[in-house]
Amino acid sequence: MRPRELTSARNPVLKVFRRALTEGVTRQGWLAFEGPHLLEVALDAGPVATVHSVLVSRSARARFPELLGRLTKETEVTQVPDRLFQQVAQTQTPQGVAALVELRPPDLDEILNRRDVLLLVACGLQDPGNLGTIMRSAEALGASAVLTLEETVSPLNPKAVRSSAGAIFRIPVVPQLEAGALFERLHAARIRIVAADRRSPSPLAHADFRGPVAFLIGREATGLPLEISREASLLLSIPIREGTDSVNAATAASIFLYEAARQRGFRYL
Amino acid sequence: MRPRELTSARNPVLKVFRRALTEGVTRQGWLAFEGPHLLEVALDAGPVATVHSVLVSRSARARFPELLGRLTKETEVTQVPDRLFQQVAQTQTPQGVAALVELRPPDLDEILNRRDVLLLVACGLQDPGNLGTIMRSAEALGASAVLTLEETVSPLNPKAVRSSAGAIFRIPVVPQLEAGALFERLHAARIRIVAADRRSPSPLAHADFRGPVAFLIGREATGLPLEISREASLLLSIPIREGTDSVNAATAASIFLYEAARQRGFRYL
Repeated sequence: MRPRELTSARNPVLKVFRRALTEGVTRQGWLAFEGPHLLEVALDAGPVATVHSVLVSRSARARFPELLGRLTKETEVTQVPDRLFQQVAQTQTPQGVAALVELRPPDLDEILNRRDVLLLVACGLQDPGNLGTIMRSAEALGASAVLTLEETVSPLNPKAVRSSAGAIFRIPVVPQLEAGALFERLHAARIRIVAADRRSPSPLAHADFRGPVAFLIGREATGLPLEISREASLLLSIPIREGTDSVNAATAASIFLYEAARQRGFRYL
Repeated sequence: MRPRELTSARNPVLKVFRRALTEGVTRQGWLAFEGPHLLEVALDAGPVATVHSVLVSRSARARFPELLGRLTKETEVTQVPDRLFQQVAQTQTPQGVAALVELRPPDLDEILNRRDVLLLVACGLQDPGNLGTIMRSAEALGASAVLTLEETVSPLNPKAVRSSAGAIFRIPVVPQLEAGALFERLHAARIRIVAADRRSPSPLAHADFRGPVAFLIGREATGLPLEISREASLLLSIPIREGTDSVNAATAASIFLYEAARQRGFRYL
């Protein structure tokens, strides 16, 4: 790797990184993030993730030779003095590595037709940390994909990406789906739609989650809107102690996924 | 309620609140927090929580008459102009209510002797959001108490309190326990000690969680130190998909608690 070195803060590459790291995405919709660990995960992800551009501080270049050695000619690598990297970084303790990565959009039709598909549909969640935790749990507990409806926080939000601990590069994530069209496709693919609804008297452990299932998870404050939950063939709740509030949305999603994994004998596809 | 109104930013009451809201606790160890919802939960908690002092902005006093009407003579109530409240507040959109609340320390001996006690022991967790989520799940999923070892983030940390969604006022939380002494008491009380250990080949669903149990949850990065996990009679893991990382510490704790609740027939004590 032979990076060109920039020394002026006004360079357009730095401007692109500064803006992208603030918003979490570039104008083309590429993911922007900081940190050597996430870059490693992106490289491990294979053809799903194209690393277009990497910004590295001078001292980080010395610190991560192996990681940077993995970059191919396709990646534009730019080196800057540490103080310039600091100006662009959005994290509290910058590690000197940032990247712009294009994620190949997953093929939803292929996913919907998988045998015993297990989907997690985030319906309107606003907290990026919760959505990131959901992606992480979905990957670990064997979900086929995470889908998000319109009006849900973006999975590319920097906090969501961090909380996903790299899962965003390893599990298909399909954002910004229009509810009506998605439910039509789920019905057509004969995927059972199960809504997590804390007001439901039916406990999740009594349902059968073998076979194709999509779990709908709503916002904590408001739950699922009626026009969403009425698409479900089952409304189920996690039984909780009387007088208590609820578990958080990411915890609820994780428990539904765990229950499905348990019933399926922890055989992950 | 007849609050006295302060108009000087230098007043000692304001200084106490400013400092306490920054650190999450007063020098006496009382919990300091913002928000009408948490104050309501504290008042609902009964004798466990003593509301010593409330700071209210002029406009919040008009907005929350019912809530403030619940305060008794024991509570010192101070009203300030909105701009002074803003100066003291630590939240981004202050709601004009802050409080200093003393929590009665739980009686650990009484807890350990409960029938079928279910304990969650946080061993070294550093993320306050995770600890808060654990308190919330522990309350909802029927744990008897949350215990934290030394070198674990404080349950009174403002972010932990917020993530607990009020659970900190409703479930006994015993902080800063010395590991050796705690394990001695757990052994003496014949409470089974189960460590969540992602490297264990034994899946949690095959174990029997009826009867008295304490779950040990470690830091995400490092897991449980050997001197902690060797105290456990069982090391169990949540089976996850090959090649994936792990679930986060709060999710792991919640899944262990869910599995215990499921095995116990969701009969919460």
